[in-house]
Amino acid sequence: MAKLSDLIRPEDITTCDSTQQMIHKARKDGVELFFDRAESMRPCPIGNESACCKHCSMGPCRLNTKDPYSRVGICGATIDTIVARNFGRMVAAGTAAHTDHGMAMLDLFRGVVEGTVKDFEIKDPIKLREVAESLDIPTEDRTTLEIAKDLYKALELTYTQVDGEIPLVKRVPAKTLETWRQEGIVPRGAMREIMEMMHRTAMGVDQDYENITKQISRTALADGWGGSMVSTDISDILFGTPSPVEVEVDMGVLKEDHVNIIVHGHEPILLEAMIVSAGSPSLKQMAVDAGAKGINLVGMCCSGLDVLSRHGIPHAGNFSSTEAVLVSGAVDAMTVDIQCIKQDLAKVCECYETVFITTNYRAKIEGAMHVEMDEHNPLECTDEIIIKAISRYKHRNKAIQIPRRKAKGIHGFSHEYIKYMLGGSFRSGYEPLNENIINGRIRGAAGVVGCTNPRSKQDFSHVELVKELIKNDILVVQTGCSQMALAKAGLTTPGAAALAGPGLAEVCETVGIPPVLGLGACVDNSRILMILAEMVKTGGLGEAIADLPVAGCAPEWMSEKAIAIGQYFVASGVFTVFGHTFPITKGTKFEKHLFEELAGKGFGKWGFASDPIEMARLMIAHIDRKRKDLGIDKGRERVLVDMADRRALEV
Amino acid sequence: MAKLSDLIRPEDITTCDSTQQMIHKARKDGVELFFDRAESMRPCPIGNESACCKHCSMGPCRLNTKDPYSRVGICGATIDTIVARNFGRMVAAGTAAHTDHGMAMLDLFRGVVEGTVKDFEIKDPIKLREVAESLDIPTEDRTTLEIAKDLYKALELTYTQVDGEIPLVKRVPAKTLETWRQEGIVPRGAMREIMEMMHRTAMGVDQDYENITKQISRTALADGWGGSMVSTDISDILFGTPSPVEVEVDMGVLKEDHVNIIVHGHEPILLEAMIVSAGSPSLKQMAVDAGAKGINLVGMCCSGLDVLSRHGIPHAGNFSSTEAVLVSGAVDAMTVDIQCIKQDLAKVCECYETVFITTNYRAKIEGAMHVEMDEHNPLECTDEIIIKAISRYKHRNKAIQIPRRKAKGIHGFSHEYIKYMLGGSFRSGYEPLNENIINGRIRGAAGVVGCTNPRSKQDFSHVELVKELIKNDILVVQTGCSQMALAKAGLTTPGAAALAGPGLAEVCETVGIPPVLGLGACVDNSRILMILAEMVKTGGLGEAIADLPVAGCAPEWMSEKAIAIGQYFVASGVFTVFGHTFPITKGTKFEKHLFEELAGKGFGKWGFASDPIEMARLMIAHIDRKRKDLGIDKGRERVLVDMADRRALEV
Repeated sequence: MAKLSDLIRPEDITTCDSTQQMIHKARKDGVELFFDRAESMRPCPIGNESACCKHCSMGPCRLNTKDPYSRVGICGATIDTIVARNFGRMVAAGTAAHTDHGMAMLDLFRGVVEGTVKDFEIKDPIKLREVAESLDIPTEDRTTLEIAKDLYKALELTYTQVDGEIPLVKRVPAKTLETWRQEGIVPRGAMREIMEMMHRTAMGVDQDYENITKQISRTALADGWGGSMVSTDISDILFGTPSPVEVEVDMGVLKEDHVNIIVHGHEPILLEAMIVSAGSPSLKQMAVDAGAKGINLVGMCCSGLDVLSRHGIPHAGNFSSTEAVLVSGAVDAMTVDIQCIKQDLAKVCECYETVFITTNYRAKIEGAMHVEMDEHNPLECTDEIIIKAISRYKHRNKAIQIPRRKAKGIHGFSHEYIKYMLGGSFRSGYEPLNENIINGRIRGAAGVVGCTNPRSKQDFSHVELVKELIKNDILVVQTGCSQMALAKAGLTTPGAAALAGPGLAEVCETVGIPPVLGLGACVDNSRILMILAEMVKTGGLGEAIADLPVAGCAPEWMSEKAIAIGQYFVASGVFTVFGHTFPITKGTKFEKHLFEELAGKGFGKWGFASDPIEMARLMIAHIDRKRKDLGIDKGRERVLVDMADRRALEV
Repeated sequence: MAKLSDLIRPEDITTCDSTQQMIHKARKDGVELFFDRAESMRPCPIGNESACCKHCSMGPCRLNTKDPYSRVGICGATIDTIVARNFGRMVAAGTAAHTDHGMAMLDLFRGVVEGTVKDFEIKDPIKLREVAESLDIPTEDRTTLEIAKDLYKALELTYTQVDGEIPLVKRVPAKTLETWRQEGIVPRGAMREIMEMMHRTAMGVDQDYENITKQISRTALADGWGGSMVSTDISDILFGTPSPVEVEVDMGVLKEDHVNIIVHGHEPILLEAMIVSAGSPSLKQMAVDAGAKGINLVGMCCSGLDVLSRHGIPHAGNFSSTEAVLVSGAVDAMTVDIQCIKQDLAKVCECYETVFITTNYRAKIEGAMHVEMDEHNPLECTDEIIIKAISRYKHRNKAIQIPRRKAKGIHGFSHEYIKYMLGGSFRSGYEPLNENIINGRIRGAAGVVGCTNPRSKQDFSHVELVKELIKNDILVVQTGCSQMALAKAGLTTPGAAALAGPGLAEVCETVGIPPVLGLGACVDNSRILMILAEMVKTGGLGEAIADLPVAGCAPEWMSEKAIAIGQYFVASGVFTVFGHTFPITKGTKFEKHLFEELAGKGFGKWGFASDPIEMARLMIAHIDRKRKDLGIDKGRERVLVDMADRRALEV
């Protein structure tokens, strides 16, 4: 490996100022970060283009990406079979991650419903009733518990149903559902789809890339409209549906004179329990006795996003900053549950004597301390974490350097809240959004989501893309690490409307919202699906999701989850652009199928661009095409060319 | 690629004489077979040792197999994390293949029980009752249909159950089950285990190889004692429990003057329906009208094995011969369903104008004819296949060269039959087997199973290993492609007892069985688990499966299914040796965990050897160690040294 000091400049690695500072410090401290490894370790060129197959022991086979049809695998698998299978397995893994997360929520919900879990309760009975009604579960004259018991059964089917259609597809616009039925891809239970996807991608099973693609879509839909949606719904029911709240973000939220505890991962349970423990008078006193002014609970990654809007808990940064924040020396404990937890956090924590604690039986890390959370007694775990953090605070002996940057922003835009805020209590609904799209004030909507990646300049594409989109009057909704990139850049404030085009700016100013709406964790992309379904239902923008003037993008995707998410958006009808790399071999029929042909069947399609401005161009062109197909391009053109007309329209 | 004529000699590629002949012919015909590609395409050395990771888009990362601890992946994943994750995904895929196959059987069973499927019925109500009773379902004074309905529900839980223990673990010996409980790996529904395995192996989740191994075992157990076992039980209930029958095998079963149709794949439904269609007087007449003497239905791979013992259908060969048999020019149609179907069969069929038909919606092949089988009307599909085959027969215009070799053998040893045959109707049970093991006539038992692989000399290791085992008085049970290797070599006849050691030979001669007992398809490895459970239950050989003097081996494994099978045997307590390659990095802690440490926790463990005699040595040493632990080594020693004593014992 190259010497750390020889490596690329921090300013070229990330646009996150705090992370830059921490990279500088890490290099001084001689601590290796994942940025350094991304620099020194080239990606395997064959694997990177998905031209290798390890699905049996006759290989591993490597096909030629320059001339992908020049040879086949030992079994005769063509490059199209291989790339489709590899892509299918990514979708299976991503779907499994979300649905297994959802299953943990379902386990918790079952515990609450059955009364075996005492520390959590149904906090949002209104949402419970709404979800139940959306699944045709009777609610009139019934207690919350009665409804909850029926709802549990219906939601469990989202995972276990071996045939037919899962209950949640009742939420899908009729024409979109019809497309799925024609293609034979209406999902059964998510677990069945994952099993079948893994089976069909095994050696000697499905070897027709178009047929494989059907199961890829079906599996992904079982994630978006299934496992992920259940996870979001249950989180809202148990912990409350988010509504907008101002939150501080970036590493400046760490406090030198407090016991700093970072919670990182994906399941809300851990952070919800941490909040209770951190509020305990005896533990607060213990912190004071150790010389601290208090306990400072901070979220990172999706755990943080899931909870920041429910409790105003500050957020220190996204995936690419989880090692960097430790370099500050100010983190007394980092505790994690599942997903996107770099294994070397354990090592970086060791360098700075930060207590590093895993809490979930499904995600241990070699050498890390494991304090298992039992949902029947969650505080036993979180109390212990706080005690360990206080002890580390007391014995701090490393130089502390906390980046000063922090930004305030508004987060917590559930689809329910968007419904309310756009119309107000007077005419709650999506009509105002649709009307503003039809009249051209808002050109369209875009979801900008997904991870950060050390092979991209952290945050850069997210921020530049979103700026370009809002400048072009496109309302942006966000989740995951992307949301945090924009939050740090200050675009989640109402003031950011100044960067928006005149139409979008006006809407934002009228309603008092930012042009960039943070919806939550990556599992909450299901909220975007609900927004799309509401937009279709409201009318005036076509009959299927594929008709809407919308697009999606994950500029710096990293996880297999992102591929599953991308595919469920594509299968739902959304043009979805990914950046920095795409895990298939170029020039294959499978590429053409994903990037062109799917749109002809009533789906969305994939797009790719490396440059954020190019991403925006692709998305805007798609939105404009959809506007034209809807016959609402004229209004928009007038808006753009004639401000007087535009003002007249606004009356 | 090298010229075909320059390639390795057919005699060095396979010990299967028929396949050798066909390789010669293929080279003359200029037709490429997978053997040729195995010769010309080197396996990727990094992937081969599982030192690469494609589980996110920060990589693909490649670690150094020479010095596996010299660096970590971008995320910090160590080599142990990476190899354990890759291994876990193989187990997930293998388990998914078996459980999805079982799920298709369950779908069929549901159709029969609900009356929507008319062409199949419950053929073995005795087995239905036995299975129901083993799951504590009341059977007394109830109709077959009433029992079947309850049984369906219980078996569905094997897939769908989200917590607790699946019903089938009632069959597991108490002490073995206790080991699983201590380790926290008693399986829930197979689909939940697959989902969790895929989740835990995603980027940033489980990063402790010992913890990952727990889920690997749990997933595999959900296959062996779950999905696979359900598949076998339902097949027996619907199509009849196998009992021994003499069958002809090898390519000589093809008949030049008949319409030859090969059925290849894994689900019994296709071949069962083909048998009905082939028996139809009108189709028979059609064949005669086309100039043929009749329709010759032939099985290959596991489809063939599943059905040969139920109907005496001949079998043309195992996985490595499925292309070669086409080279004969005598195959009028090859029809396939799922698994182990090489994609290039389509191309080889094209070369010989053989009709190639896929039948399952989960497994299409680009360019192949697809005639989908609907279990509600299966004969529509199979009639059409036969008509197409007859048409090809009529227009045959390729030189035909059918290898003459065929062998007769006895197959179809269900664990129920073994129970009967060993004791006879007088004292049916496993006591005689256990007694003969205790008294040393039989040294132990071995399962020799699994695939063939073009990177190994086809059949060679299977045959040499089994010969060595029986010579050492070890009774061999078999499934899958391995069973067919021995069948072709003539070892599945009672006469093969001549090759056995004196103790085993005597038992075989007394009972009138071969020393090598074929149990069926690879999914039927669950029959071996049942044999092991019966042996423990019968007594005298310890309390757990891990106490038994038994071992397993897959000398030429190829499919991910084999890894799942191997792991469920290891987790059940069996020492399991794999040959030719093992998909993990040597010198890692994970290797030590699988190959040594698991045994210390009450499990079996993995072993590896390239040479069949070395495989046998490892297995015999293990069996002798277990005999010693059981205190029955003395008897065995006496048997070996003193024939007079031995005869005295036999009285």
